[in-house]
Amino acid sequence: MAQKPSIPKGTRDFGQVEMARRNYIFDTIKGVFQLYGFQQIETPAMENLSTLMGKYGEEGDKLLFRIQNSGEKAALAPEKGLRYDLTVPFARYVVQHREEIVFPFKRFQIQPVWRADRPQKGRYREFYQCDVDVIGSDSLVGELELIQIVEEVYRRLGIRVCLHINNRKVLAGIAEVIGAPDKMIDITVAIDKLDKIGVEAVNAELIERGLNAEQVDKLQPILNLSGSTADKLNALRSILAASEIGIQGIEELDTLFGLIKATDVQLNIELDLCLARGLNYYTGAIFEVKALDAQIGSITGGGRYDNLTGIFGLPDVSGVGISFGADRIYDVLTELDLFPKELQSTTQILFAAFGTDELHYALQWAKALRATGRTVEVYPEPTKMKKQMSYADAKQIPFVAIVGGDEMAQNKVMLKNMVSGEQELVDFEELVKLLNC
Amino acid sequence: MAQKPSIPKGTRDFGQVEMARRNYIFDTIKGVFQLYGFQQIETPAMENLSTLMGKYGEEGDKLLFRIQNSGEKAALAPEKGLRYDLTVPFARYVVQHREEIVFPFKRFQIQPVWRADRPQKGRYREFYQCDVDVIGSDSLVGELELIQIVEEVYRRLGIRVCLHINNRKVLAGIAEVIGAPDKMIDITVAIDKLDKIGVEAVNAELIERGLNAEQVDKLQPILNLSGSTADKLNALRSILAASEIGIQGIEELDTLFGLIKATDVQLNIELDLCLARGLNYYTGAIFEVKALDAQIGSITGGGRYDNLTGIFGLPDVSGVGISFGADRIYDVLTELDLFPKELQSTTQILFAAFGTDELHYALQWAKALRATGRTVEVYPEPTKMKKQMSYADAKQIPFVAIVGGDEMAQNKVMLKNMVSGEQELVDFEELVKLLNC
Repeated sequence: MAQKPSIPKGTRDFGQVEMARRNYIFDTIKGVFQLYGFQQIETPAMENLSTLMGKYGEEGDKLLFRIQNSGEKAALAPEKGLRYDLTVPFARYVVQHREEIVFPFKRFQIQPVWRADRPQKGRYREFYQCDVDVIGSDSLVGELELIQIVEEVYRRLGIRVCLHINNRKVLAGIAEVIGAPDKMIDITVAIDKLDKIGVEAVNAELIERGLNAEQVDKLQPILNLSGSTADKLNALRSILAASEIGIQGIEELDTLFGLIKATDVQLNIELDLCLARGLNYYTGAIFEVKALDAQIGSITGGGRYDNLTGIFGLPDVSGVGISFGADRIYDVLTELDLFPKELQSTTQILFAAFGTDELHYALQWAKALRATGRTVEVYPEPTKMKKQMSYADAKQIPFVAIVGGDEMAQNKVMLKNMVSGEQELVDFEELVKLLNC
Repeated sequence: MAQKPSIPKGTRDFGQVEMARRNYIFDTIKGVFQLYGFQQIETPAMENLSTLMGKYGEEGDKLLFRIQNSGEKAALAPEKGLRYDLTVPFARYVVQHREEIVFPFKRFQIQPVWRADRPQKGRYREFYQCDVDVIGSDSLVGELELIQIVEEVYRRLGIRVCLHINNRKVLAGIAEVIGAPDKMIDITVAIDKLDKIGVEAVNAELIERGLNAEQVDKLQPILNLSGSTADKLNALRSILAASEIGIQGIEELDTLFGLIKATDVQLNIELDLCLARGLNYYTGAIFEVKALDAQIGSITGGGRYDNLTGIFGLPDVSGVGISFGADRIYDVLTELDLFPKELQSTTQILFAAFGTDELHYALQWAKALRATGRTVEVYPEPTKMKKQMSYADAKQIPFVAIVGGDEMAQNKVMLKNMVSGEQELVDFEELVKLLNC
């Protein structure tokens, strides 16, 4: 016998149970996106390498899956690669189709991406991203709507979360007022680790990254900010008074918290000055969502970018977006046992026949039942009843309609409840009523 | 400015209108699959090349997109390729997961596939397939259910079709009784062209493929069979009397037509002895569906295979399946103008505000409306009313709720019907009633 077949490492097959659960997540997210008028697009799995290269840093370039040319060009360097994220293809899409697009453009996209990362627990080489963005407007209503979407998605999924929020302009202002405007990235990379490594280690790293002791000292009040959001914003306003960009960041946060209050958002929201996020293209708000009841890191994140499409020759188009991490949401729902129970089986009833005539009879009933919207299977052969029953058991089908000569003669079926084991003789009308649609 | 970005040839971007239409097709098909208890699976975009190679003939091997290895292995020959169809990954899946699968296994799969074909009108390098199969049972109820699925899918889509049906055993029987049992493939390849090139050219091709004149003569009554299905089956029964496999094929067709009659299938079904289909793995029934009102070739096809999983070391597992061609169905629906009109816009109402206070007011109304399930957008800036209106126009949003100081004072909005141009002042209750959910 041939060797048992397998799939490439870091990739996955999804069976029916996983698919039902994944579809539940995607459908929930999609349903909320649509409530806000976001519209779906899809881009090809392959992009030209020229579109992808240099957009994810040196490390990212190495992680691109390249596609060998076909035909005569096979010997030449690859020209195509697999999508690495949904952001760069989205920027490419906006520039390429800018004549047809109605701005502000509200789009969402749910597709797999591929990265030649070393596979490990929770990290795959093929995984789905769910991105939602509005591009072509710098109004903070964009930020507000994304926050409302986060609130509604997690309310529907039943996951308690906290949304952490920050603003890159505030971070720039901080770098400015401590006298190290060119060190913003270094400062944010270091303070991003505050939660993980503590204040001592962060200070050590800041020195290592070229700040002097005085600058690190000046930073301490900011690392230690506490109190309500209003308290933090007030403290920052005086700390950043000398920085134009810093004050601009404070104003943005102020306006956004005003919108949040005006629309009575119920989500836990925390102003988190240690939130920087790795990607350097954010220019305004930065978001990250963490589940409160599971230790899993960020399950949604994003922010505002003022120049995403600039790399493709269309400057000055501001947008804001977030990405839901479907795999991590899946893990949280599994850990907290929050998947709806009815996802397990899509089939409501199986017909099991004793003979060929009974099978024909069952097929007729099945047809009539399906016309009412019920999901119905007919065991395809009039084989041993035990075998038919164990099929229903294995597939967790809740009801079996047994058809023998007696049932046919009475124009009925023997309905067995597979949970309670109870049986009763029912006619078609009764059966329709018993199976909720 | 940089060169305008593009995508690889033979691939496509799908904008919101195309996505809405594609989702309509996929959701319709999926809804019918689920009525019959078929369950969705997904497999990775990449498979090991060892899984793919040699499964599609020499030509197919050339059309596989190969993925360059990453890291240290980059210089070696590729080990992975992109999925070329859904059938081989399905066979691989069944063998790999056979311990967990409940047989008969009813699965469907809707995913893209990639082929390095020369792109041309209607032929793409990335396209979706929608496959449905039941594997692990040789009951003809499998064939019946696929026929019922074809009937229901096209009824829901509003496309009039004819299902052509044949049986590979009958074709084998024909080869046997004309004395050329080793020429079955040649005969089927030739007579498959009857519609296109006519009987003379088919006969010439048969001679070219090694049949003698007597054998070609014996074939003529079969090429000329006409009348009802029952007539054709009766005629065939006597022609094929000497061939065991031929009679087996007739019996199968007979049983299947009996099931079709017993379940009152309304579909146009034609027994078509010229139907062979390219793929050689079919061993029983063969199906092909053609649209009656569009010249586009086959829009759905499939058949029974007795040894699909044999290539991966699991012999003797019989299955039957069909594949819906989403791109061609899209073209037929477009040509016949059959897409539902309401797919155009998903947003029911846009709020347009005159100032910042009005914008806050609009955001509150929008929130309350969304809670009732309505899809709502708020123009993100209180900019010129004309600009906000043209956004609604361009997105074909049917209603705009205009908010100025007067409306706010009365706790109302000015509702504009974008089709008729009429305006009326409404309160929240009235608005909810006017927008159907």
